[in-house]
Amino acid sequence: MSNKSSDFPRSPAPPKRVKVTQQDERNQPESAETTPTRFVSVGDVRFAYRRFGKPSGTPLVFLQHFRGSMDNWDPALLNGFAKDRTVITFDNAGVGFSTGEVPDTVAAMAHHALDFIDALHLTQVDLLGFSLGGYIAQHMTLSSPQLVRRLILAGTGPGKGEGTQDLNPTILDAASLPPSRNGQLQLFFEPTETSQAAGAAFLDRLQRRAGERDPSLMGPGVQAQRTALTRWDRNEDAAYPHLRAIAHPVFVASGSHDLIIPTVNAFVLAQRLPNAQLILYPG
Amino acid sequence: MSNKSSDFPRSPAPPKRVKVTQQDERNQPESAETTPTRFVSVGDVRFAYRRFGKPSGTPLVFLQHFRGSMDNWDPALLNGFAKDRTVITFDNAGVGFSTGEVPDTVAAMAHHALDFIDALHLTQVDLLGFSLGGYIAQHMTLSSPQLVRRLILAGTGPGKGEGTQDLNPTILDAASLPPSRNGQLQLFFEPTETSQAAGAAFLDRLQRRAGERDPSLMGPGVQAQRTALTRWDRNEDAAYPHLRAIAHPVFVASGSHDLIIPTVNAFVLAQRLPNAQLILYPG
Repeated sequence: MSNKSSDFPRSPAPPKRVKVTQQDERNQPESAETTPTRFVSVGDVRFAYRRFGKPSGTPLVFLQHFRGSMDNWDPALLNGFAKDRTVITFDNAGVGFSTGEVPDTVAAMAHHALDFIDALHLTQVDLLGFSLGGYIAQHMTLSSPQLVRRLILAGTGPGKGEGTQDLNPTILDAASLPPSRNGQLQLFFEPTETSQAAGAAFLDRLQRRAGERDPSLMGPGVQAQRTALTRWDRNEDAAYPHLRAIAHPVFVASGSHDLIIPTVNAFVLAQRLPNAQLILYPG
Repeated sequence: MSNKSSDFPRSPAPPKRVKVTQQDERNQPESAETTPTRFVSVGDVRFAYRRFGKPSGTPLVFLQHFRGSMDNWDPALLNGFAKDRTVITFDNAGVGFSTGEVPDTVAAMAHHALDFIDALHLTQVDLLGFSLGGYIAQHMTLSSPQLVRRLILAGTGPGKGEGTQDLNPTILDAASLPPSRNGQLQLFFEPTETSQAAGAAFLDRLQRRAGERDPSLMGPGVQAQRTALTRWDRNEDAAYPHLRAIAHPVFVASGSHDLIIPTVNAFVLAQRLPNAQLILYPG
């Protein structure tokens, strides 16, 4: 655990029994649509993951949003990155094809993600965290600053602070309903013709992968993730008080009008990080 | 004046007597350092300008910051754009090599700039407005929406509105002092080693142009510009209430910690514009 050099608290966890059930297979040029799902176990959790793209020294590890599984990443996004580097997606504990329980704190989710990365014997990664995944990525960086080289934080925030806005419970209620095409179009895309068309194309791309679908989170895990979101936004384990300690290069990106994590939170995040660039995209 | 199709008020001005004292010279591949200063007269104002770069259908017209003249643009920035397109810089009325009086409203400055563009017989332009120049660019776009194709708004804001911060009078006092190398390094660059080194390189590049220096604004014009800044920021003629009417593609850029126009103002600007992308740069 040489990468865990920070004073930032990690949540307690049971002693780990690392067991790699399938060796890494490097030099796999598969695409997001064709790469096989692999598995690696740490303690009681069997993590499902996918690893593909151009072999590169530092892979880019993707951390998914509220309820999302590996099959919720846009293949176009993954394949774009995979042209230049190794891309790793995974289901965190209790999500999708992974076993275990969904914890109700971001700290514990970050702990699971670090376990997963350790199990792959990775000593340096870049992280792309989207929404809840951005919370997890910040927590991972604070607790294991040596492990992380660069960060991409998309559609996310640092927790409650000066200038931030609280998450809207009505929107979270809508996001907690059984996933539907219309629901996703409303939550993730603006009500304009161009944005809705982009959303429809995105949802179509999600269907391109053959075989069993990696399911979105349902059941009690949804409430656990929601509790984690709320705790972070009340600053129980949030990054906001610690942002100055993240000296890493960070690219912060958000939509101009993010419904789930208010866009101003991305602005506050970027302003308080010592070395961040912010982009807000319209539509 | 076929481009003036908006209801957005233009300030009253005396009837114009357009007189082009020097014809446009197209197909000039000069650089920012070598292109000659040209002149064109409208009524009582003789505008100094420079025009160079790859000939292109829609030129990019630069609108300068508080006190700045043509010689305050970074040649590296201008030459970068000039590789792909025609670049036009000019001194607005009363600034640098241009005659006339500096007005004390953004509306009147925008009026002058539109006169200048008319005098060059341009029917469509892109605008890059920096700080005060960004105020002017917004006003021009609202009063002549057909003239403007796309906007770049750098280090600027929309006037007072929800979430904006007022300009700091102490900073404006500092910016009103006689220009000095140290003053510019403090106002335009963060107090970090990398940012100060970038600032020193910028100031060195400003000296590369041979011949007479186009002077920064001094004297009573400084107070007039400052009054215009203040009036805009009190919303006397500001864009804030009208931002929804700017349907143009807008690229909003700012430093993460702009001392003169608070960075949050760029955020508010980008959020309220219907079609804007925001980038905030660290350092």
